[in-house]
Amino acid sequence: MRVDLNSDLGESFGRYKLGLDEEVMNYITSANVATGWHAGDPLVMRKTVRLAKEKGVAVGAHPGYPDLMGFGRRYMKLTPEEARNYILYQIGALYAFTKAEGLELQHVKPHGALYNALVKEEDLARAVIEGMADFDKKLIFVTLSGSRPAQIAEEMGVKVAHEVFADRAYNPDGTLVPRSKPNAVIHDKEEIAERVISMVKDGGVRAINGEWIELKADTICVHGDNPKAVEIARHIREVLEREGVKVVPMKAFIR
Amino acid sequence: MRVDLNSDLGESFGRYKLGLDEEVMNYITSANVATGWHAGDPLVMRKTVRLAKEKGVAVGAHPGYPDLMGFGRRYMKLTPEEARNYILYQIGALYAFTKAEGLELQHVKPHGALYNALVKEEDLARAVIEGMADFDKKLIFVTLSGSRPAQIAEEMGVKVAHEVFADRAYNPDGTLVPRSKPNAVIHDKEEIAERVISMVKDGGVRAINGEWIELKADTICVHGDNPKAVEIARHIREVLEREGVKVVPMKAFIR
Amino acid sequence: MRVDLNSDLGESFGRYKLGLDEEVMNYITSANVATGWHAGDPLVMRKTVRLAKEKGVAVGAHPGYPDLMGFGRRYMKLTPEEARNYILYQIGALYAFTKAEGLELQHVKPHGALYNALVKEEDLARAVIEGMADFDKKLIFVTLSGSRPAQIAEEMGVKVAHEVFADRAYNPDGTLVPRSKPNAVIHDKEEIAERVISMVKDGGVRAINGEWIELKADTICVHGDNPKAVEIARHIREVLEREGVKVVPMKAFIR
Amino acid sequence: MRVDLNSDLGESFGRYKLGLDEEVMNYITSANVATGWHAGDPLVMRKTVRLAKEKGVAVGAHPGYPDLMGFGRRYMKLTPEEARNYILYQIGALYAFTKAEGLELQHVKPHGALYNALVKEEDLARAVIEGMADFDKKLIFVTLSGSRPAQIAEEMGVKVAHEVFADRAYNPDGTLVPRSKPNAVIHDKEEIAERVISMVKDGGVRAINGEWIELKADTICVHGDNPKAVEIARHIREVLEREGVKVVPMKAFIR
Repeated sequence: MRVDLNSDLGESFGRYKLGLDEEVMNYITSANVATGWHAGDPLVMRKTVRLAKEKGVAVGAHPGYPDLMGFGRRYMKLTPEEARNYILYQIGALYAFTKAEGLELQHVKPHGALYNALVKEEDLARAVIEGMADFDKKLIFVTLSGSRPAQIAEEMGVKVAHEVFADRAYNPDGTLVPRSKPNAVIHDKEEIAERVISMVKDGGVRAINGEWIELKADTICVHGDNPKAVEIARHIREVLEREGVKVVPMKAFIR
Repeated sequence: MRVDLNSDLGESFGRYKLGLDEEVMNYITSANVATGWHAGDPLVMRKTVRLAKEKGVAVGAHPGYPDLMGFGRRYMKLTPEEARNYILYQIGALYAFTKAEGLELQHVKPHGALYNALVKEEDLARAVIEGMADFDKKLIFVTLSGSRPAQIAEEMGVKVAHEVFADRAYNPDGTLVPRSKPNAVIHDKEEIAERVISMVKDGGVRAINGEWIELKADTICVHGDNPKAVEIARHIREVLEREGVKVVPMKAFIR
Repeated sequence: MRVDLNSDLGESFGRYKLGLDEEVMNYITSANVATGWHAGDPLVMRKTVRLAKEKGVAVGAHPGYPDLMGFGRRYMKLTPEEARNYILYQIGALYAFTKAEGLELQHVKPHGALYNALVKEEDLARAVIEGMADFDKKLIFVTLSGSRPAQIAEEMGVKVAHEVFADRAYNPDGTLVPRSKPNAVIHDKEEIAERVISMVKDGGVRAINGEWIELKADTICVHGDNPKAVEIARHIREVLEREGVKVVPMKAFIR
Repeated sequence: MRVDLNSDLGESFGRYKLGLDEEVMNYITSANVATGWHAGDPLVMRKTVRLAKEKGVAVGAHPGYPDLMGFGRRYMKLTPEEARNYILYQIGALYAFTKAEGLELQHVKPHGALYNALVKEEDLARAVIEGMADFDKKLIFVTLSGSRPAQIAEEMGVKVAHEVFADRAYNPDGTLVPRSKPNAVIHDKEEIAERVISMVKDGGVRAINGEWIELKADTICVHGDNPKAVEIARHIREVLEREGVKVVPMKAFIR
């Protein structure tokens, strides 16, 4: 019984600070580091990779749309060729920092609206996975648990980490309830921890309508943008370990 | 007797086209590929690296200031820490494309105002060379022949290619005559070829005042932004080969 | 019988040149000047506004998505509040140059993918028109002839110029045949001129299936990005004048 | 006896928040609103202008270098023509928001490294003032008290507000002690208030070496980036009013 805990980090930019990276790094096993397009800059990337090294956290790239003003949270219509090469550029940029610090690059998790677009646009998903594989076929692709991109990656022989969200309600079809809907986000840390345990140990969770859905949980997304989020991350880690689940970087078990 | 011919390529961006890359690639041995900050974008980078592969041209990174509007030709005051990490980011970004295409990354040549700033700011030069070495100690640093950055790189154990300019007049101290001065740029292709032969075979050239100056010529910078420039590149290559000089990528002889 | 001829100009950026602005300015009556987000920069804007002044061409703003790399041709999902304020920002930026040169700002024509998105997203259209009206209720809104945004603007009491495309085939419902379809673009200058005359004098044109469609033609979009386009613009102007149509800026007749 | 209190506001960008704008707006009379190049975006500009309107604070433009990553705090070498048109663009962009909200644009204060560069480069200062005057000759130019740019503006017939810094030590020649030097920044709110009173009522202050220097104080720069800064602003305002100084927008007394 093992699982990875991931968080989006390195989202500061120039004079702008975002996220309690130092604190949340204490509880996670994989850091998704922003690559300068939707967030992050080279100084922030260096600092974040160093921090991950100090804390023993594995590092992955968190590429996004070329949209700093929208923080990569707005859909943009990209061609597959654009997506493939935008991903490649951003992976390379982050790789330089992991190489400089003597770390290996573990995974790639697309950010924000791009993450969501992959689930809906098969061509886009394929292009992003090709961009990853162009760089290194051993990189792990992190995507929504049970989604079409996960299948595509598996068909292409690329390693996949199925991701679940600790604090989000699910529809009966395994998709996330949009944030705009009532009860989409769960705030109670005990409820969050219970759901995490259910996903990791029982292989599923109750959907928003009470139905049981099966979910593969390789990695759990937690947040670090405010003290409450960090406290939830801490609590999830503690409960997982108390329940005998090994919390380890995804590379320890994804083949 | 051997020399490398280099040119700045991949400077198109989005809808904007710049440079006769396909034509000039026929005559050069090393391509300095723009890395998306002062010019270039991921699609252009992919295409340029592919073209270099087809033509058997070695590839290097051509990083610049974060200033697309100024094409990296305007001085910006960077801290050494900024410079080091900006370089690292851009090298990594280009590396991704060479890796995807199965090429090795040969060299790094800073662009425009950054190239010039290194000659004047020792801390900046050191930071840029550290950024290169952070990535890979075997990369070749391309800089103004006989300049302080060349010395610094040598002291740091980094390989250096001393660069000369085929079409530019030199001051008696080995610096370039600024473009704003009369006769700074040489337009006659025969005169250019003669100067190149002098630099490569005799180890020096006449300065603008007629004085003889010694110059180490590992690589010659040629241009590809207009048909006349391409014709000059073609002519230089032809004359070099006629004179028995081997025109080969710098990695063939720089240790 | 009168019509306006408009063209997208000022699309150069920094070192990158685009468009035969000086040539096409000889034949048009309204210039849509890029405002620095999808194309254009302050130097280009100044130069383009000056050129319009010299040639007696009326000036309008041509705002686009914040996407220089995609030249504003890629759909981005904006909220109405974003769209309204992005438009306002860009109108103000161009207004500064018209004010500096003693010209009045005549119109606003959204660019590229934003132009197209307005036709499909009513909220977005309303937001863009509000952004215009926030600045000046007398600005003319240029949009696809007969489209929903034209209706919305009229309902809001904003002046509208119905735009037709000289070189594009129409569907029977008045929308443009997408460029990806066969025969979407008409290349023969005589055929183009005939269609223009039909639209201006007869109030309609044959759709791609031969059906007659009615189209209000206040302004005709022509291009200036290559010599052939300029020649077509010249020819359209000549034929219109020969047929007794007055070619004048839209402000002369839009109320 | 009257003075203006100004602060740099609207420096948030997209997802990134900066500054306690709402709080500091309670104590100042003029807001320098970032114009989207070094900080700020159209949503932030709209919100900031609205807030200024609610609070009865006068609005000016705070244009900067095109360097969001460096927050406009890094010197860039601009040509006068670039500077003139960059300023014009940014003034126009902000003007759109003041026009939309029914406010007048009061002043222009260049930001960060550009503010400092003007003091050293006379051509640059002239170009920036020309950019302002291109837009509107009645705008007030805010610059370092007693500096060369102030003289240039006066010679050009442009209104000037001489600015002093409440919390900064001065050299005997009237320039600011650089932040890198010891005691450059004054932290004690009583000492700051005393210095402000000295500058406003006695027309001068003690330089860092104890020498008396004369300083014209039309407007005092205060900060709003942290609670302590806001408390200092509050205290300065209170002490000024207690001492019988009228704290009013600069347009009330600058001719």
